[in-house]
Amino acid sequence: MNKAVGRGRRAGGQDTREAIRQAARARFLADGYQAVTMRAVAADAGVDVALISYYFGSKQGLFGAAMALPANPAVIFGQLLDSAPTLDGFAERVLRQLLAIWDDPGTGGQLKVLAATAVGDPHFGRLIREAVAANIIDRLATRLGGPDATHRAAAFAVQMAGLIFTRYVLRFEPIASMTADEVVAQLAPPLQRVLTG
Amino acid sequence: MNKAVGRGRRAGGQDTREAIRQAARARFLADGYQAVTMRAVAADAGVDVALISYYFGSKQGLFGAAMALPANPAVIFGQLLDSAPTLDGFAERVLRQLLAIWDDPGTGGQLKVLAATAVGDPHFGRLIREAVAANIIDRLATRLGGPDATHRAAAFAVQMAGLIFTRYVLRFEPIASMTADEVVAQLAPPLQRVLTG
Repeated sequence: MNKAVGRGRRAGGQDTREAIRQAARARFLADGYQAVTMRAVAADAGVDVALISYYFGSKQGLFGAAMALPANPAVIFGQLLDSAPTLDGFAERVLRQLLAIWDDPGTGGQLKVLAATAVGDPHFGRLIREAVAANIIDRLATRLGGPDATHRAAAFAVQMAGLIFTRYVLRFEPIASMTADEVVAQLAPPLQRVLTG
Repeated sequence: MNKAVGRGRRAGGQDTREAIRQAARARFLADGYQAVTMRAVAADAGVDVALISYYFGSKQGLFGAAMALPANPAVIFGQLLDSAPTLDGFAERVLRQLLAIWDDPGTGGQLKVLAATAVGDPHFGRLIREAVAANIIDRLATRLGGPDATHRAAAFAVQMAGLIFTRYVLRFEPIASMTADEVVAQLAPPLQRVLTG
C-alpha cells in the first residue's frame, strides 16, 4: 500500500519517504523498538510527524518499512486478531497465514534472512524481541484476558517461533518438507490448546 | 563419565582420546552426522575402532565429545524415552530436564552458543539437523508408532525448539523470565497433546 502511495507522487515525496525510512531504521537499531517514537524519527528526518503517519500509517508500519520487511507479521497478526469474532479456529487461521507468507520463495526467503539475523546480531535481536512483545504477545494477551493471559500468549509465541526456526531456518526434517495441510493437522491442535484450553 | 575414564589413564590415553575427538569433529563438520561412521573416524585417527567404543560408547557419545557438548541432549532424551514405561506425563519430564540443563548458567551458556551457531554456520546447521533427526525425531517416532508417528514427532520437536529459541537464544519476554514451573504449566499440555492426543 505504501508503495502505491509513493508511486503516484513526485520525486520529492519519494525522497522524503526514504529519508524518514532511513532515520527510523537508524533509531530502531540504536534504541530498540519500545523507546522509539514517531516524533523522534520525525525530528531526526527533519519532517513533521504527520508525514510519518501519512506515509507509514503507524509505528508498526514504519518499523516494517524501516526493516524492509517483505510482509509485516505484526500487521498481519493484528488484522487476523481484530477480525476474529471468537478465538475458535484461530490457531489454524494463523498457521495458514504464516505458512503462506514463509513458504513463498520471495517473502519467505527475505524473512528467513531476518530470522537468522535476529539470532546473530544483538541489536537486531533486541529489536525483534521488543517488536514481538508489543505487537504479538501483548496484543494476544489483551485479547485472551484472565490471570495467566501473558503466559498463554508466550506459549503461543513459543510454538510459532518453533515452526519458523525448525521449518525455515534450521530446516529440520520432516517438518521442512511437510505440506501446509500436514503442518496444520499436527500443530493447530496444540496451538489452539493454549488459546482456548 | 568419559572424563572419569580419561582421568585415570596415562597421558598416552589422553592423547589418543583427543586425537579421536579431533578426527571426529573434522569428519562431522565435513560430512554431516549421518554419513560419518565410527570406522571412518578410527581410520582418520589411526586407531582401532574398538578404542572409539571404549572412550565414547556410541556414535552419539562421540558426537557429543567431538562438538564439546556440555550436556548431550540426544543421550539424555534417549535415556528419558527408554526409561518411560508409558508416554503419560512424558512431556513434563522432558520439559523439566530441558529446563534444568538450559537454565544452568554453565551448560546452558554453552548450549546457547551452539544453538546460535547452528543458525549462523551452514555446516554446523546440517550436523545438528541430522543429529536431531536421527537421535530425537526418529527415535520418538519409533516409540510413538502409527501412520503419522513421524509427523507427530516433528510437532514435538517444533515445540522443544520453540522453547529453546524463544527462552534462551532470542530471549522473548515473558517466556525468558518465567519460572520452570510456569513454563511447564503452559507448555506441558500442548506438548503432551502431540504425544498422546
